[in-house]
Amino acid sequence: MVKSHHKKTAAAAVVAAALASTASAQTYRRAAACPDLGCIYPPDQSTFVAGQAFDIRIEVQAPANGTAPYNNGVPSEDFALYIGGKGAELEEVASFYQIEDPIVEKYNFTYFEDLFYEANDTATLVNVHAKSYRHLTLYNPGKYELKLQYNGNMETLAEWEVLPLAEKAKAKNVILFVGDGMAPSMVTAARLLGHKSINGKYQSKLKLDECTGFGMQHTHSIDSFITDSANSATALMAGHKSTVNALNTFTDSTGKGYGNPKFETIFEMGRRINNAKIGIVSTAYLADATPAAVCTHTSQRSQYDYIVDQFLDGGAVAYNGVPQNFSWTPFDGVDVIFGGGGKDFVPKDSNKNVSKIERFQDRGYQFVTTNSSLFELDHSKRALGLFGEDTLPTWVDRHVFPENLADFPAWNPENNTFTAPSTDVPGLKEMTLKALDILHTRSKADGSPFMMMSEAASIDKAMHVTDYPRALGELLELDDTVRATIDRLEELGLMEDTLVVVTADHGHGFDVYGSADTEYLQQAQTNDTKRDAIGTYRESGLSAYQVPADVSPQNNTVFESPYGKGFPVNWDPRYTAAMGFAADVEQYEDFKIKTAPRKTSIRELETGRYRADPEDSPNGFYMSGNLPTSGAQGVHSLVDVGVYAFGAGASTFNGMQDSTQIGQRIAEVLSLGRDKKGDFAVCKRNNDGKCKKQ
Amino acid sequence: MVKSHHKKTAAAAVVAAALASTASAQTYRRAAACPDLGCIYPPDQSTFVAGQAFDIRIEVQAPANGTAPYNNGVPSEDFALYIGGKGAELEEVASFYQIEDPIVEKYNFTYFEDLFYEANDTATLVNVHAKSYRHLTLYNPGKYELKLQYNGNMETLAEWEVLPLAEKAKAKNVILFVGDGMAPSMVTAARLLGHKSINGKYQSKLKLDECTGFGMQHTHSIDSFITDSANSATALMAGHKSTVNALNTFTDSTGKGYGNPKFETIFEMGRRINNAKIGIVSTAYLADATPAAVCTHTSQRSQYDYIVDQFLDGGAVAYNGVPQNFSWTPFDGVDVIFGGGGKDFVPKDSNKNVSKIERFQDRGYQFVTTNSSLFELDHSKRALGLFGEDTLPTWVDRHVFPENLADFPAWNPENNTFTAPSTDVPGLKEMTLKALDILHTRSKADGSPFMMMSEAASIDKAMHVTDYPRALGELLELDDTVRATIDRLEELGLMEDTLVVVTADHGHGFDVYGSADTEYLQQAQTNDTKRDAIGTYRESGLSAYQVPADVSPQNNTVFESPYGKGFPVNWDPRYTAAMGFAADVEQYEDFKIKTAPRKTSIRELETGRYRADPEDSPNGFYMSGNLPTSGAQGVHSLVDVGVYAFGAGASTFNGMQDSTQIGQRIAEVLSLGRDKKGDFAVCKRNNDGKCKKQ
Repeated sequence: MVKSHHKKTAAAAVVAAALASTASAQTYRRAAACPDLGCIYPPDQSTFVAGQAFDIRIEVQAPANGTAPYNNGVPSEDFALYIGGKGAELEEVASFYQIEDPIVEKYNFTYFEDLFYEANDTATLVNVHAKSYRHLTLYNPGKYELKLQYNGNMETLAEWEVLPLAEKAKAKNVILFVGDGMAPSMVTAARLLGHKSINGKYQSKLKLDECTGFGMQHTHSIDSFITDSANSATALMAGHKSTVNALNTFTDSTGKGYGNPKFETIFEMGRRINNAKIGIVSTAYLADATPAAVCTHTSQRSQYDYIVDQFLDGGAVAYNGVPQNFSWTPFDGVDVIFGGGGKDFVPKDSNKNVSKIERFQDRGYQFVTTNSSLFELDHSKRALGLFGEDTLPTWVDRHVFPENLADFPAWNPENNTFTAPSTDVPGLKEMTLKALDILHTRSKADGSPFMMMSEAASIDKAMHVTDYPRALGELLELDDTVRATIDRLEELGLMEDTLVVVTADHGHGFDVYGSADTEYLQQAQTNDTKRDAIGTYRESGLSAYQVPADVSPQNNTVFESPYGKGFPVNWDPRYTAAMGFAADVEQYEDFKIKTAPRKTSIRELETGRYRADPEDSPNGFYMSGNLPTSGAQGVHSLVDVGVYAFGAGASTFNGMQDSTQIGQRIAEVLSLGRDKKGDFAVCKRNNDGKCKKQ
Repeated sequence: MVKSHHKKTAAAAVVAAALASTASAQTYRRAAACPDLGCIYPPDQSTFVAGQAFDIRIEVQAPANGTAPYNNGVPSEDFALYIGGKGAELEEVASFYQIEDPIVEKYNFTYFEDLFYEANDTATLVNVHAKSYRHLTLYNPGKYELKLQYNGNMETLAEWEVLPLAEKAKAKNVILFVGDGMAPSMVTAARLLGHKSINGKYQSKLKLDECTGFGMQHTHSIDSFITDSANSATALMAGHKSTVNALNTFTDSTGKGYGNPKFETIFEMGRRINNAKIGIVSTAYLADATPAAVCTHTSQRSQYDYIVDQFLDGGAVAYNGVPQNFSWTPFDGVDVIFGGGGKDFVPKDSNKNVSKIERFQDRGYQFVTTNSSLFELDHSKRALGLFGEDTLPTWVDRHVFPENLADFPAWNPENNTFTAPSTDVPGLKEMTLKALDILHTRSKADGSPFMMMSEAASIDKAMHVTDYPRALGELLELDDTVRATIDRLEELGLMEDTLVVVTADHGHGFDVYGSADTEYLQQAQTNDTKRDAIGTYRESGLSAYQVPADVSPQNNTVFESPYGKGFPVNWDPRYTAAMGFAADVEQYEDFKIKTAPRKTSIRELETGRYRADPEDSPNGFYMSGNLPTSGAQGVHSLVDVGVYAFGAGASTFNGMQDSTQIGQRIAEVLSLGRDKKGDFAVCKRNNDGKCKKQ
């Protein structure tokens, strides 16, 4: 398809030739989803659920210098986008939608073309003309063609697809679990730590292993093959690829965190169409990328203030006091939101002294801050739970090293700040089960469905600082939560109406490659002899995590874990799994669990470079890392991640798929697609926010 | 189950207590599958296809010294194994099978209990009494219990399962592709190199991505969670976990490569029951573990001579001149065997001057040594193809750097040795398609099914020496081969009768975590600035392997690869994938493809330690590795690997499974299980080796 696009038009050939001279421009890009001087958002290859709302934006760019300047940096004043069903005659977009043509925005930006340009501090200036068309939709399934005409005879082409309407809904409700950063290799390692095998056969398994639908998904984003958690969560929750740091928007070239072309998430669609009750649970701070991706829109995931406002008021709220000049899907707030990140809900300084907690309370939300108070909630009312100032403590710290809890600030009711030591903090399971109770009760009250996103965030956060045992503890807690959630759904008789999907947003380079005799390693005196403590193949042996410290791993007894079914019997055995290290900063490795959460394995030099910190693991051996030494953390990786589905519609997720298909297939299972006749976007709403059917 | 075994018997409690004092004995094990002083093979948790042949062996061990000596190192003379259906009264095994009790073997062995014992050179001596019962089977599906009684009141218990008979065969033929070492992360990376994506959507995909049955399998072995390729291939081809280095046997404590307790492979069963035509294809030397696992039996995969003999004569041949004193499944040779490894077919020295090539020819095999002669083969006759002395050249060397072919010795007809430069060498696709032609023709002649194993061996071999691009080239060649094979099966009208399963035997720690600007890296002068060339997240950018060298990766044209559909357009772009490195030796990394195959990244010091060799990558940066410096290669990893199934019965492989279930499920799809009535083990054979039905 696209091949012929670019081969059949003379204009495209011109552009291709121009780009050929900038073949080196890979390190940094002029603009994402914008291979030519003319850009269309949503870009070529976009796929929509029928009736899904989105903005259109077109840009014409002209570099003034650099390797491929155009027309002295002056873009054409005259440019227009044409759209139509594939094969039909194309129509100008304002005419197609019977809307007014917006005013042209004019601005410029600079970028470095590659590392040599950056080293020489030589930026390229680009002038831009742009237009945005807001809050549009396409109802008719099939292919669409788009053509941006600019600079005389230049053209940028795109092809979109609107997915077929589902014949009928297979499920009413959905629970989407995200194991942030959960690579397949980490699932395997978690099974090794949490379950006993005898002569090569596991005596129990992960709940994930029992999934009735199983597949894998490709996680890369529009502009890069390694994704961050914002745009990958966007793919899962809205069915669109985007660019690094972007939440449910395409990143335009303005450099601004608001006003970028947006698209509707499946949660927003569920609310709009079915008045779905929406729940968000995360062990991260709640303004973090994955929880934010449920219903917020910004090209800059760091806009925490803006994100929290959208949880309550939807995607058309003011940004930092600047009103947004567009309409968007009405959204009157999530029903349940539990997690960390109180920091983004309390006033930070005297200039911004509005507590968002009070704003939630004014809108009828119950407010809780402890595990105990979680159990006193009224299931019929909305609830905000902020169980810590920042990311919540990990399962390992809550269960194995509870003395670390004091370092996690929690709510101090005496002065309404997050400054008290954390003592009474829920985990993913407690938050998820309580959120389910509330969603179920509220859904039952008016017959509406519910949609929940629950994130095990610190799988990723622990991996970033190479704290592997804590990452695996979080993964086991996720598995335990999935098991408990499905048990609860079955008790409630909801499993036949509910789809449960467990997946990751990306991986981390990780694997287990042997075992380490940590006692030998600690006593050995040289780097070489320390590395001799690693046993590979036959000497990797059996999992020592499934026997008490004084029992051989070869003992075939299945011991009960003091931490519950599916967790290690011993978190700190002499023979640990030798694991980790595929995309990491430097470190000293001793293969032992850190008794306190690892903040980093490196220390910063005066030069700004980071070097392994011997004090992090005093008896460890040196590993050099394979990332730039200018960075302080490990990074994400390319690997496809698993999709583990249960309940109604689970088999929809079998086999290999793209990350965007997760969102699209959830929409298919819930039958969220609408043709024009069935659309509610233009209907009037009742006071309760529910849309009157036409 | 097992839990109660070990809790309910007083004897087990005694043993557990004894083991508790040897809790440290993880690095090395007294014996695999032998947690107590009494050992049963097949061990606890074994699962059989109904009618599958196997040997039983029992051992009683007594350590004379070390941390847990027993009775001054004297094992009891009096020991017996009891067997019966679960819940039924157990019967002594000789009586159960109405066979004679074998003579007791007596011997001893030594081992180190852990790294401290090894450092002090303090071995533990173990005396053993043992018995082997040969060529048995179980016909009735269900659970079986076993009890080894020894040393007075000591007991070792085991539970076995015989799988239910299939209701009917879903497929007649099977082709099992093994991507040796193919971790899921490598499949993802191969897709990135071989296929173009535009705005995050792939324009074409791997054939593996189109599988109609998809799952993952756990690869660990009996005695260790990191497997080698012998026992993992055994699980795939016979449905039993074994121990490192073992092929279709359990490893007893004799230390000998022959006479260990064997079990029948599904290929042997197919031949015995259906007179199946059997094909073996590998890019490795043919005596290597994966091809050997089709139909040979030894606890030491390095017994190449013994293995080659078994390809022709089955598992009861003499070992190194020593006759085997047991009966085994009649096996009159594979029908097709194509690969490398001529070294193991020609006389090595004057003492052993029998050419195995002549032995094959005497038995009616056609013999070929070049790609051209492959196409002259008579499809109705058996064929032996030896296309090189050792492992065959990789796809990358055959297609991108053909000048390297001269370094791969091939057949020299002038002196009947493998000493000529390789010029005319087939790849996996050519060998597999020709093997299919022969199997199909021979099967059609007598209405029998065919079974083929085809291995992309150098995925693994390149990973061991951290030659990542060559590993990915082999993976893309495998994918291309799977595509071509399925096309051919469809042409032949065989796809409805044929199951195609593609899987791996284990993974390698591997992932892609960014891109590398190799031009910047080459020019940078320090380790730190070289590492600055690595771009992560947004700066990872797009795959530069899918555009010509002078075109930006952002160009949306789908270029045709000079190497064919599904391969890179450019193997050596400026912006490469930054990849690798999770269980590696030291190296200097420059992220560029090596123009000659990487033999190793390290050099040996006088101390016997291995250090990164700067000459391997003169402009690279140093990476320290995370394995013992006493070893020269990367190792395998834990990660579950993918199972990609096509054709008849493909959905049988959906979801999570154990490696042994691959073999068992192939047997199920082919309906190889037999109850006593349907069994042919005791039948007379015709001269053509076909079993007369009773």
